[in-house]
Amino acid sequence: MAAELDERLERYADLAVQVGANVAEGQIVFVNSNIEHAPLARALARAAYRAGARYVDVLYIDQHVRRAMIELGPDDALTHAPDWLKTRYGSMRGAATIGTTGDPEPELLSDLDGERVGRARSPELAALIRTQMMEQSVNWTGIAYPNAGWATKVFGEPDVERLWEALSFCVRLDEDDPVRAWREHMDRLETRAAALTERRFDSVRYRGPGTDFTIGLLGNTRWMSARFRTADGRVYVPNMPTEEIFTTPDWRRAEGVIRASRPLAVAGDVIESLELTVRDGRIVNVDAAHGAELVRSQIASDERAAYFGELALVDGTSRVGQTGITFFDTLYDENATCHIAYGFGIPDAFEGDPGDDLNLSTVHTDFMVGGPELEVDGLTAAGEAVPILREETWQLSQ
Amino acid sequence: MAAELDERLERYADLAVQVGANVAEGQIVFVNSNIEHAPLARALARAAYRAGARYVDVLYIDQHVRRAMIELGPDDALTHAPDWLKTRYGSMRGAATIGTTGDPEPELLSDLDGERVGRARSPELAALIRTQMMEQSVNWTGIAYPNAGWATKVFGEPDVERLWEALSFCVRLDEDDPVRAWREHMDRLETRAAALTERRFDSVRYRGPGTDFTIGLLGNTRWMSARFRTADGRVYVPNMPTEEIFTTPDWRRAEGVIRASRPLAVAGDVIESLELTVRDGRIVNVDAAHGAELVRSQIASDERAAYFGELALVDGTSRVGQTGITFFDTLYDENATCHIAYGFGIPDAFEGDPGDDLNLSTVHTDFMVGGPELEVDGLTAAGEAVPILREETWQLSQ
Repeated sequence: MAAELDERLERYADLAVQVGANVAEGQIVFVNSNIEHAPLARALARAAYRAGARYVDVLYIDQHVRRAMIELGPDDALTHAPDWLKTRYGSMRGAATIGTTGDPEPELLSDLDGERVGRARSPELAALIRTQMMEQSVNWTGIAYPNAGWATKVFGEPDVERLWEALSFCVRLDEDDPVRAWREHMDRLETRAAALTERRFDSVRYRGPGTDFTIGLLGNTRWMSARFRTADGRVYVPNMPTEEIFTTPDWRRAEGVIRASRPLAVAGDVIESLELTVRDGRIVNVDAAHGAELVRSQIASDERAAYFGELALVDGTSRVGQTGITFFDTLYDENATCHIAYGFGIPDAFEGDPGDDLNLSTVHTDFMVGGPELEVDGLTAAGEAVPILREETWQLSQ
Repeated sequence: MAAELDERLERYADLAVQVGANVAEGQIVFVNSNIEHAPLARALARAAYRAGARYVDVLYIDQHVRRAMIELGPDDALTHAPDWLKTRYGSMRGAATIGTTGDPEPELLSDLDGERVGRARSPELAALIRTQMMEQSVNWTGIAYPNAGWATKVFGEPDVERLWEALSFCVRLDEDDPVRAWREHMDRLETRAAALTERRFDSVRYRGPGTDFTIGLLGNTRWMSARFRTADGRVYVPNMPTEEIFTTPDWRRAEGVIRASRPLAVAGDVIESLELTVRDGRIVNVDAAHGAELVRSQIASDERAAYFGELALVDGTSRVGQTGITFFDTLYDENATCHIAYGFGIPDAFEGDPGDDLNLSTVHTDFMVGGPELEVDGLTAAGEAVPILREETWQLSQ
């Protein structure tokens, strides 16, 4: 059994290296993982060296150390970014990076002061990461690692094998030729995104239980799939799995109310029953059954954090959605159903220089709005409503 | 049981922070740990924040990632030091650092090419660490973390509790007031070291099974205990446990043969039955039942690596020696019995500027020579031999 597990892990790591980050011969590869993801981080190191990496640089994150800081550290520690960490982000230009998700203790910080949890982030570091994304100088990807703690949150018991099977299905590791399956999958999403861009809708309207929300689109952006390209033209897939087509909205134009359709795991806590009220583009009220304070603290991080940055559409063909599982992991849950993010926009969605049309927040938090009852319409400049999604079924021709 | 274990771990971490590194209010504390030591690293973070640390910066090391590099990486990767890691060492000036030992897989690299294993180190990084030690700008300590892999190497079974008990005895955690016990212990060692310095021996002679070795002392060095002081005068204890008094020898004057009396764990392998032949201060031949190639590769690292840097004397009062355990961990085994190190000398042992008398190698590897049959003599300038150790009993008045 151990050998079988290892083989799957090696194939999974190869897929992340070859399709996700698409590591080039001679590249340095940065890996960022929770310590509980060590078996995957090690497999990624092996896969990257097999693919010709010049050096694999693994950095482990430990949420318990973060917890100690939030619980016992002085106020200044919360926003401190060590010089070396800034150097590390600074030296990623031209490199590949792989991050792993799958929180082994998604509620580790839930008993701490939510305001401190939300404040415990370095704006300086976030700005460095944002710059990196704007430069499009890094081929990066994120994949999840099935582990006992995460499985327990998802299934109520540490059934790691069941989680492995769900993930394998979602990332097409169950296919004989996963690389080819990914190529065909991304072709489909790319075609759909291009067709939606051609519609040149003025705005998008969401209606569903607790949600009535309209948000503007820009004239200089496109809908896209997660088939990304670096400025040098290297193709990569930043999320594995990915089922979405998405764009960056006009952060100035958004009105209404949104009720999140799933819990979202963020910064060591799980936000339950999130409700946002939006006026003139800005989130003016946050309610939640749990975690409201953390979200309020996040959107107060900088002047654009309370404005939106991403709209993403996912239909019922999503393999993630088909599992019927709530993963409590944004990489998965956001690919099960439609989602929206407040904060930083998507530089890749712009045609030409975005200027101030790009939301430059240092925050980017996705939350889910989709479900069978959600109706998504494209609104034309003339005010006509064109159905895009009904009962999780794509209504346009592509 | 979990609660009891936790309490011991917190006390252990407090001891490392208070007596070992002696963390000052407002200091940044760097922790370097194997990922398998995470419970201790987390406890150290808590203890350091409790002691008033400004920020605790934990970096995890993963020997499996290192293994992937040695096994699958290109040649240049072996000696590569990422810029951020250099920045991190550079920013330790004025900070406290705590490293943890207790290798969970002491033979993880033993099936790899020993020459590559020995070469897999960055001279640049080693030079940074050496500079840090010469500046005496960091209050640092090392402590071990009992774990299943290490316990298995020591006892043939993963009896972590037995290892905990042995370690607790060695670091005086079994005392009602460990801090006071440490103060008294260090007073004793410091007094003994001062008395030995006053003898002003010209050289030290070791005779025992397979060993007949004489090495010169310098006029501008002293014997010392591991009660160290930073340049600013902050007292700290770099090794927990410590049972040795030690000095740095004249690297130019050493002759004879040495047979290591215990295996030594170094760089992911365990060197068995090491034998060194020394002429004109230099190791000219290396034999071993296992691992000779690794040692040969190490002493070829730079021009002074094959010369000596440390002589340390340990007698039968050592708590580590009293356990009768071979720990396969240098922090412990070197405190069970007399040891010698090739490579970098000890800046702290010099009175005044060492000049070229300090061995400036980037290597420092301790190996054990002590045991019941070892006879250690001090030789005066006139050629008289004065017994220092017989049957592990101290022969001088202090």
